[in-house]
Amino acid sequence: MTYTHRMNRLHKELATSGLRAMVFNAGPTLGYLTGLDFHLMERPVVLVVFCGERPVLILPELEMKKLEGRAQDFQVFAYGENPEKWSAVFRDALAGLDLAGQKIGMEPGQMRMLEYQYLQAALTGLDFIDGSGHVARLRARKDSVEVAAMRQAVQIAEQALEATLPMVKAGVSEQAIASELVIQLLRHGSQSSLPFSPIVAAGENSANPHARPTKRTLTDGDLLVIDWGARYNGYCSDLTRTFAIGRPDQESLDIHQLVLEANRAGRAAGREGVCCADVDRAAREVIVAGGYGAQFVHRTGHGIGLDCHEHPYIHGDNLQLLEIGTTYTVEPGIYLTGHNGVRIEDDVIVTENGAESLSTMTRELRFL
Amino acid sequence: MTYTHRMNRLHKELATSGLRAMVFNAGPTLGYLTGLDFHLMERPVVLVVFCGERPVLILPELEMKKLEGRAQDFQVFAYGENPEKWSAVFRDALAGLDLAGQKIGMEPGQMRMLEYQYLQAALTGLDFIDGSGHVARLRARKDSVEVAAMRQAVQIAEQALEATLPMVKAGVSEQAIASELVIQLLRHGSQSSLPFSPIVAAGENSANPHARPTKRTLTDGDLLVIDWGARYNGYCSDLTRTFAIGRPDQESLDIHQLVLEANRAGRAAGREGVCCADVDRAAREVIVAGGYGAQFVHRTGHGIGLDCHEHPYIHGDNLQLLEIGTTYTVEPGIYLTGHNGVRIEDDVIVTENGAESLSTMTRELRFL
Repeated sequence: MTYTHRMNRLHKELATSGLRAMVFNAGPTLGYLTGLDFHLMERPVVLVVFCGERPVLILPELEMKKLEGRAQDFQVFAYGENPEKWSAVFRDALAGLDLAGQKIGMEPGQMRMLEYQYLQAALTGLDFIDGSGHVARLRARKDSVEVAAMRQAVQIAEQALEATLPMVKAGVSEQAIASELVIQLLRHGSQSSLPFSPIVAAGENSANPHARPTKRTLTDGDLLVIDWGARYNGYCSDLTRTFAIGRPDQESLDIHQLVLEANRAGRAAGREGVCCADVDRAAREVIVAGGYGAQFVHRTGHGIGLDCHEHPYIHGDNLQLLEIGTTYTVEPGIYLTGHNGVRIEDDVIVTENGAESLSTMTRELRFL
Repeated sequence: MTYTHRMNRLHKELATSGLRAMVFNAGPTLGYLTGLDFHLMERPVVLVVFCGERPVLILPELEMKKLEGRAQDFQVFAYGENPEKWSAVFRDALAGLDLAGQKIGMEPGQMRMLEYQYLQAALTGLDFIDGSGHVARLRARKDSVEVAAMRQAVQIAEQALEATLPMVKAGVSEQAIASELVIQLLRHGSQSSLPFSPIVAAGENSANPHARPTKRTLTDGDLLVIDWGARYNGYCSDLTRTFAIGRPDQESLDIHQLVLEANRAGRAAGREGVCCADVDRAAREVIVAGGYGAQFVHRTGHGIGLDCHEHPYIHGDNLQLLEIGTTYTVEPGIYLTGHNGVRIEDDVIVTENGAESLSTMTRELRFL
């Protein structure tokens, strides 16, 4: 039912878009539309969706078992292990579809040249255009099944971090903390395919927004940024909290307070009909007013769901309006190069009453 | 040194290939050539390599810190958070490069339409062609640093499975075993970005080569296929062993013996100058002679390294010759639909003396 409903919503998008069809390769949107889970590997998997016809699915024979017991009805074209014969299977699959000269949508951030070249070779004269906006519109409005999964992904993440904190103290390395945190994520029920490898960054490393855990050990005066998430039924959480090791200097305490206020303002700004840029602005104004505008070097957030980063992106130039059911992160930060950094990140959902944070773990500075 | 050497090898490949340059997006080859590790996300990262000039690197400002302290010298072009301005940065980066009308190589299995469209828009008239063969040739011959990492990845995997086996018995679910195995992989030193989520498949599920762990519990008479791997310094291991729960029937024991002999024959067939198809044939002949040819439904193996699946692929139509330093899997299987399956997989490296298995864990059927 869920998948039929989603496919019907996509059909409606296509009908108003001028697209004859959309093509998808292995990845989150294919899973969203079908419930089928394929790895992005050397064997191409392609789904073609059009109004009024059964979707076409091209896949390795090896993966045929995944179709057993499915309610959805596909036109299936399977290929064997010799890549030289794959082109012919793509040609067979697309031959009868009356697609020549039509506009076909695809997702540029997901579609690889591998699948694209097979599609092009099978049906010359296709006009592939960026259809990711249509898909983003579908996927941005989470249904109740999706929201339940995201709540669970947030809860797992929070419990895992609480279970990790007892080991977090001066003398322990970033890498040791990150390893323990991953284990706790799995113990608390995350899928092993995490949304991303946790960031555990202390002192000068915490001033790098995309730091990787190193052998550096925590020392007195460090701020410690932990950016982590879980995956549950395919859905991601993505949180950040900042901790104090021993007694950080006054400026470090001050920037934490400022980011906390920016996070609160960013969360409070979200509601139906507000544009993404306004959420970014609400958080950024607090930091600019505090004198650290130049040290908040990234956007305020990103949509989150089956992808850890998805539409809508919460940056100052995005005029897209928030809708009920949209989920995104609010994650302002201040980064003092060579010294300390702070980021505080929550996952929120737009409701009838504004924006609700799915994460409730305290945001106050905790001293470890 | 390592990266300069690899870049020089790529220059030599380009010089003999008629390619003016090669472009790479975030992924294993970019890491192989530079040591830089970028996620494949909504922000495109592109490396352009040509002979006789400094490589061009286009990346988000947010990632600039990763370049600090690097010996390699790039022409760097960084962009901010507003996607509308990214095209201009790509144009600036490529404007002075004299690439128009030239043949440019790329990797179709890695390059996305996202990066491709930015490249196309920046420099119309580019002729992008599949250059993955050149890269595969570089990456297939592992150097000593790479082999050491792969040995470690194999050792971690073997230790993690041994640490998991005490819980493996009738009544325990596939999912519970998979969760514990992942935790043990991390405890024994694997990176949290595993090469793939372990397959733990019992009874009729073991007859599906690409099964995912389910809630099904192990019962007397099951064969249990465990296909798992670790990642160390970016390099993958990928192993499979099959176990007996209680007392499987005679046919299940027989097919295990047959697959064991096929695995041995496949491993023994590898040496410098032998073609991939001959390795496949050596393993397959054993199973065909045993009467189960139709139940060995996949190729015998795949190259392995930074990617869990990479060139060369070990299938019956691949006439590519093995070289010293090439690493690949040997993983014959027999799958009796609705009943039981067997697969035994090792990672081997071509040496001066033939092919050495990096994995040494017993392949005999163990009764649990």
